[in-house]
Amino acid sequence: MAVKSSVKTRDNKHDRILRAAIDTFAEKGFFNSRVSDIAGAAGVADGTIYLYFKNKDDLLIQLFEERMDWFLRQVRERTADIQNPLERLKAICLYQMEVFESDKALAEVVSVELRQSAKFMREYSNRKFSEYLQLLGECVSQAKARGLVRADVSPVVVKKLIFGSLDELAAEWSLTGGKPGVLKRSAGEVLDIIIRGIAAHPEKPG
Amino acid sequence: MAVKSSVKTRDNKHDRILRAAIDTFAEKGFFNSRVSDIAGAAGVADGTIYLYFKNKDDLLIQLFEERMDWFLRQVRERTADIQNPLERLKAICLYQMEVFESDKALAEVVSVELRQSAKFMREYSNRKFSEYLQLLGECVSQAKARGLVRADVSPVVVKKLIFGSLDELAAEWSLTGGKPGVLKRSAGEVLDIIIRGIAAHPEKPG
Repeated sequence: MAVKSSVKTRDNKHDRILRAAIDTFAEKGFFNSRVSDIAGAAGVADGTIYLYFKNKDDLLIQLFEERMDWFLRQVRERTADIQNPLERLKAICLYQMEVFESDKALAEVVSVELRQSAKFMREYSNRKFSEYLQLLGECVSQAKARGLVRADVSPVVVKKLIFGSLDELAAEWSLTGGKPGVLKRSAGEVLDIIIRGIAAHPEKPG
Repeated sequence: MAVKSSVKTRDNKHDRILRAAIDTFAEKGFFNSRVSDIAGAAGVADGTIYLYFKNKDDLLIQLFEERMDWFLRQVRERTADIQNPLERLKAICLYQMEVFESDKALAEVVSVELRQSAKFMREYSNRKFSEYLQLLGECVSQAKARGLVRADVSPVVVKKLIFGSLDELAAEWSLTGGKPGVLKRSAGEVLDIIIRGIAAHPEKPG
C-alpha cells in the first residue's frame, strides 16, 4: 500500500501531497477541490499526484487511513499505562480532540469533508475507523468486567454513542471557526456525562 | 415559500416529486441521482421539476425543510402532555427514531445524503435543524430548573450530545440494512445512559 511504503521510505512528495490535500479540502470543500489545486498547494506537477493516487476520492481515503494509522499508534502508546479503563477511555477521546485542535483542517476533513465522498461512505470498507471504535468498546468491556460499569450497558452501543457525539462536536467546531480549547472542553463535558451514565457507581465513576 | 403553499393547496405534483427525490437519493445516493431520475420516479416531465425547484440541491433542502416542519408539528403535539421534561426529551427523540423506522429512505437521506451536499453543509442556514436542537435543549433547561438535572450540566452541550449520538445510530442503521426495531431500541439505550448521566439523582432519573 502506498501509504505504508511512504512511511518507511519517508517519501517527502507523498507526504506533501497529503498535507496539501487536507488544507485544500478544508479550505474549498472536497467537491470544489480539483486535483490541480492540490498539486499547486503541494508544489508538484498535476501528473505527479496520479503517480501516488488514483483520483481525488483515493487521495481522501488514503489521507484518512494514513492519519488514522498514526493516531492509533500514538493513542495506544500514550494511554497504555492508564490502569482504569474508564480513565483510559476518556484519555483516548480527549487525545483525539487535541489532535483536531492542533490541526483544524484535519478536523474539518475528517468530520465534514469525508462524508461528502459518496465513495468513502458507501464503498469503502472502513477498517481503520472500526479499529478506533473497537478500542473504545474494549475500554467499556474491561470496565464492565471490573464492575465499574453497569451489567446492562452494551459496549457496542456506548462506542457509537461516544463516537457520534464527539464527531458532532468536532464537525460543528470546525465549521464555526474552531476556537482553541473549546472542542476539548465540551468533549470533556460530554465524556463526563456518558461515563457517569454508564458507571455502576455514578458518584465515583472513575 | 413553495413548501408551505404546497401544503395548503395539497399540490399533488410537488409532494410526488419530494417523495420520488427521497427514494431516489436513498437508492442511488445524492451525487449519483440525476434530476431526470427523480422526474421518472415521480412520473413527471424533467422540466416540471424546475417549476418547483431550482436544482438538485434545492430539492434536497426543500425536502428536508418540509419533512422537518411536519416532524416538529407532530412531535410538539404528541409530547405536549408529558409533564416531566426528561420523559418528554426521551419521547421526542424516540419519535424521531419511529419516523425513521417507518421511512428508511428518509432516514438515509437525512442522516447520510444531506451531508453529501456541500451546499447544504456550508451555505444553508439550517433554521429547522436549530429549532429541533432548541426543543431538546429546552427540555434539559426545564429539567435543570426543576432540580432533575445537575446544576453543572450545560443544555447546549447535551443537545449536541443527543443529536450527534442518535444521528450516528441512524446513519449506521440505514447504511446497514435498517432492520425494524433495532434503531429505536439502541436509541432507547443511548437516551437512558445520557439521562442517567445528567440526572441529579441517577437512581431515579425520571
